[in-house]
Amino acid sequence: MRIAIVGLGLIGGSLALKLTEKGYPVWGMSRTPATCQQALQRGAVQGCGTELAQLARFDPQVVLICTPLDQVLTTLAALVPYLSAETVVSDVGSVKQPIVAPATELWPLFVGGHPMAGKSLQGIQAAEAGLFRGRPYVLTPIAKTQPQALAAMKKLVAAVDAEAVCTDPARHDQAVAWISHLPVMVSAGLIAAVSQEADPAILHLARTLASSGFRDTSRVGGGIPQLGLEMARHNRQALLTTLCSYRAQLGQIERLIEGERWDELLLVLQRTQQEWQQFPVNQPRRVPQDLGNEEG
Amino acid sequence: MRIAIVGLGLIGGSLALKLTEKGYPVWGMSRTPATCQQALQRGAVQGCGTELAQLARFDPQVVLICTPLDQVLTTLAALVPYLSAETVVSDVGSVKQPIVAPATELWPLFVGGHPMAGKSLQGIQAAEAGLFRGRPYVLTPIAKTQPQALAAMKKLVAAVDAEAVCTDPARHDQAVAWISHLPVMVSAGLIAAVSQEADPAILHLARTLASSGFRDTSRVGGGIPQLGLEMARHNRQALLTTLCSYRAQLGQIERLIEGERWDELLLVLQRTQQEWQQFPVNQPRRVPQDLGNEEG
Repeated sequence: MRIAIVGLGLIGGSLALKLTEKGYPVWGMSRTPATCQQALQRGAVQGCGTELAQLARFDPQVVLICTPLDQVLTTLAALVPYLSAETVVSDVGSVKQPIVAPATELWPLFVGGHPMAGKSLQGIQAAEAGLFRGRPYVLTPIAKTQPQALAAMKKLVAAVDAEAVCTDPARHDQAVAWISHLPVMVSAGLIAAVSQEADPAILHLARTLASSGFRDTSRVGGGIPQLGLEMARHNRQALLTTLCSYRAQLGQIERLIEGERWDELLLVLQRTQQEWQQFPVNQPRRVPQDLGNEEG
Repeated sequence: MRIAIVGLGLIGGSLALKLTEKGYPVWGMSRTPATCQQALQRGAVQGCGTELAQLARFDPQVVLICTPLDQVLTTLAALVPYLSAETVVSDVGSVKQPIVAPATELWPLFVGGHPMAGKSLQGIQAAEAGLFRGRPYVLTPIAKTQPQALAAMKKLVAAVDAEAVCTDPARHDQAVAWISHLPVMVSAGLIAAVSQEADPAILHLARTLASSGFRDTSRVGGGIPQLGLEMARHNRQALLTTLCSYRAQLGQIERLIEGERWDELLLVLQRTQQEWQQFPVNQPRRVPQDLGNEEG
């Protein structure tokens, strides 16, 4: 299986490293010559170029588009003239509904993909072969998706030691709104609120006293602004649904505190403790393998 | 300096371990005989008892009340008959306004204290001598606080390798509402909202895909319900102030997404990224020493 990777950032670079390690021929493309050089130096790719036209000579069986979300469709459209008829194409974008149907129109052997792995650092320098180990890798086939394309992607997911999770684009987008995009906004709101404290002595004290509880709750809200913006733009409707539900839940907590309804507040906190334990990532056995991963 | 510690949970036990390690005579009290045995076995205390009356024979120069918050005042009242006139008394409760003034009325040599350290495990089993190393330890003197009592507590804070931070009870309570109590409610609301998802397939998918971003943002909301309740009950007004400000900030983020005001949303996320970096706990150099601490 000859694999071309377009876009050699953290995800593209890590896929390249792992697939090369597994013995697949991997060709890379980046518009930045320095990134190409780094990819070659790190042994992530056997060949690299700055133009899509160069890809035709490599004749890939699978092409992974690892560009930012808003460049996936334009990249695919530009890629089509250079693909042979059996080439499978996938992407790694974190939102799938705006991508999968139009991409499948452009190229019938397209399969939407989203590896649930990442870290706070970006770029090929931060890439690592083990990034996807044991992590879910979502594939989002639709009615028009060709079975052989899905099969090729499942093989690739297994090759990077990830676990394939198949679902439709709409369910994927709602699920990531809950566990990835809503937390960013909830966490950003926390930082924004603290920063509004009018007494400089209290604000200074809050910063001084903040411990791991604040650090963890505020981490994703203090992350890269452009990523948060991208989530909101491309998954706007699903995110708004979650924000509305969140507002209702937090409002209820606020009313219980306001009304000193302590028995009911205790019930809410008991339920959230139980619900929290339902998430595999929160179970103790998952911690070691996740230590290297910073965000999904 | 002879030190008595009343209540041998995580905080009391850790203080006992560290002070014993530093060579101070430490006597412990717990109403549970098994806890006394464990404290003796771990070498945290040189003597231990289940009754406050036994404390008089030890004649402590400092008594640290390390009970849950709602038992601090009743414990102090019960303790007064057994104290000699020069004994300094402090507590470790996470809210200070309801404690400090009435405690100072009960005992003029009282100083409010709050070590900003903890972890997700509780009890003497989880105690460790290094728990307070490099962490802030808040002392909250008021006008009536005796200087020699404050001086004794500063010496004790230095002995457990913590950094003394002096402020008044009101500012302390508002600061911890921002960085400790508000995050618990914000995080609990997140878990509660996800759990309301009506489509079981999406809920299952959300749980499966949740990664470290969700884990971190939801951690304190999935913590011990009784602790969250205690925060809300005893710091209700300060917490309500922060919840009101938080609601306004998140509402603004929601309106920007609803109105597709992407430039403004980017500005908000750029500001939260900058604000986030203003917190010492979020600066890279602080991470190693905090790895063992789970909550403040």
